Amino acid sequence: MSDWPDRRVLDLFGIDLPILLAPMAGPGTPELAIAVCEAGGLGALPGSQLDPPRLTRAIETIRAATKRPLNLNFFCHAAPARDEAQARAWRGALASYYLELGLDPDDPAPMAARRPFDTEACAVVEVHRPEVVSFHFGLPAPDLVARVKATGAKIIASATTVAEALWLEARGCDAIIAMGWEAGGHRGSFLNLDPDAQVGTFALVPQVVDAVRLPVVAAGGVADARGIVAALALGASAVQIGTAYLLCPEAKLSPMHRAALTAASDDATRLSNVFTGRPARGIVNRVMREQGPISATAPAFPLAAEAMGPLRARAEAHGSADFTPLWSGQAARLARALPAGELTRRLGEDVLAKLAGLAR
Amino acid sequence: MSDWPDRRVLDLFGIDLPILLAPMAGPGTPELAIAVCEAGGLGALPGSQLDPPRLTRAIETIRAATKRPLNLNFFCHAAPARDEAQARAWRGALASYYLELGLDPDDPAPMAARRPFDTEACAVVEVHRPEVVSFHFGLPAPDLVARVKATGAKIIASATTVAEALWLEARGCDAIIAMGWEAGGHRGSFLNLDPDAQVGTFALVPQVVDAVRLPVVAAGGVADARGIVAALALGASAVQIGTAYLLCPEAKLSPMHRAALTAASDDATRLSNVFTGRPARGIVNRVMREQGPISATAPAFPLAAEAMGPLRARAEAHGSADFTPLWSGQAARLARALPAGELTRRLGEDVLAKLAGLAR
Repeated sequence: MSDWPDRRVLDLFGIDLPILLAPMAGPGTPELAIAVCEAGGLGALPGSQLDPPRLTRAIETIRAATKRPLNLNFFCHAAPARDEAQARAWRGALASYYLELGLDPDDPAPMAARRPFDTEACAVVEVHRPEVVSFHFGLPAPDLVARVKATGAKIIASATTVAEALWLEARGCDAIIAMGWEAGGHRGSFLNLDPDAQVGTFALVPQVVDAVRLPVVAAGGVADARGIVAALALGASAVQIGTAYLLCPEAKLSPMHRAALTAASDDATRLSNVFTGRPARGIVNRVMREQGPISATAPAFPLAAEAMGPLRARAEAHGSADFTPLWSGQAARLARALPAGELTRRLGEDVLAKLAGLAR
Repeated sequence: MSDWPDRRVLDLFGIDLPILLAPMAGPGTPELAIAVCEAGGLGALPGSQLDPPRLTRAIETIRAATKRPLNLNFFCHAAPARDEAQARAWRGALASYYLELGLDPDDPAPMAARRPFDTEACAVVEVHRPEVVSFHFGLPAPDLVARVKATGAKIIASATTVAEALWLEARGCDAIIAMGWEAGGHRGSFLNLDPDAQVGTFALVPQVVDAVRLPVVAAGGVADARGIVAALALGASAVQIGTAYLLCPEAKLSPMHRAALTAASDDATRLSNVFTGRPARGIVNRVMREQGPISATAPAFPLAAEAMGPLRARAEAHGSADFTPLWSGQAARLARALPAGELTRRLGEDVLAKLAGLAR
């Protein structure tokens, strides 16, 4: 034997291995996507922090290097109304850090760079026709979903509860990413954002599998061949892996973030909204400890990031990660510092060997 | 094939199936333990809510019905100092409920019945010699651990982090229960009690497996054959199952608790300290919503239960579960209302079939 027990996601996307690279706005690069694509997984490009010209260049870089299917990822939050009172309260909460770092709390902060999927981004999709388009925080408006589907792209999105999975299935998704409590970065939640209510991967995956007809991609704590086999056993057709790719040389990661990941214990992370306004999992640092992990003062996503930006830049210049989001899932300890293509191929081989071994 | 890929826990305890019944103070009965023992799993009796005479009778009931190995479980918290100011504050927080239910907030409440493992309980162990003794919240004092070991019993205990697993291994445990975020009832935590820091089963199990030499039992979200196979894939040698046994006729469960479990969605539970003073997972109800899920006013375990007791009794008499701890893990949806012996045997058969099927 050397075939996969469940080919639904493989056939849906036209890939060889049931491994999806998590998009990871920030660390995700064209080079990381290319390496995973070429190894037979589904590479992903995070699109929400790129304006259309930069997004176009990134896609062209990938398309020039690989003919394999690509997943283009977007946030689809509702752009928040700007609440000046809340913005002032948030800057007030952070003011002492500004003074400590020699910054003026009244200086205007740069606009938060995270854009929701819009007609401009959709136009890029229509020109470059990625094989897969994935969304985080639900789905964009129905007319935009229809335009994406009309390009032939398969649409996938994250569910953190069974109710979210059913919502996505009813609105035309082709597969569901079941994103468990363990996952690093932003929760994909859109119906239940309560951090305390989030469901562990082990409980979430089989309940989503039972609830929907679509194939399910398990995410959250999946970091090695053991995790992939376990996800398949729970009924997933594939996995999405993020944190385990962060130590790859193709990922854009600061030395501080890399050092924090390498040292992270299993209980080193928390869900926190202090960096962007939405709950996201990262390694505990000073601002998360002192202002959160969940702050009632933080403005809506992505506005909380604005006042944090100058603090982060100044602190990082001094070698401090006190204000840096150190995104990580709960299994950073399992990450291996290998080139992404080699990591992907090894995972595939190890999974097939484990599947055979379990049934000796 | 029909043998188990990992026999370490099977051989350690002398059981046929890698399935441990979670003790479950409250719903756990001698009848439930007997049924799991006779089906080839490891039955368990929760000992902490029974005084020595009642504990002795319960053990004798089990021993008369089965010759199979038995796990006798105890809490081993430090008995808390009584803090009158905190007790008053807690009764104050609950006073309006007392008035609403026609109770006098100043009437003395019964003492909390949860006893830490002590010399009296140890004497029962020495007389009845259970094959396995399990502890929750760490381990008792070294002299008590030594007395238990001297009886020949294998000692197991719950770890919710890698650090807790290493602590338990260093103090003489024979196997580690890796208890993930999904698990129902009281967290076994003793070094890191922060609910936000708890690690999902999917991330916890492989990291504990990598850290300790002892065999690992996966707990938390394991509720059907898919979960057992997944736990084995993650490196566990066995699983501990609680919530999935709650619908068995042998479990002592109120109709209200049963109805809540049957209706529970994946995101219906929270970790809450309002019932006993320690974080425990149950289905959200009124007092958890209004006073928690985590209350800074709740006294230390188990003292918070005292003032809750009269509210629970009066509300339940009126058919309300507003003050009842509805313990449940995050996978209640996967529970099946079968006799416990039949459930255990079916799980074993289904797992072996799945193991064979994964490698077709």
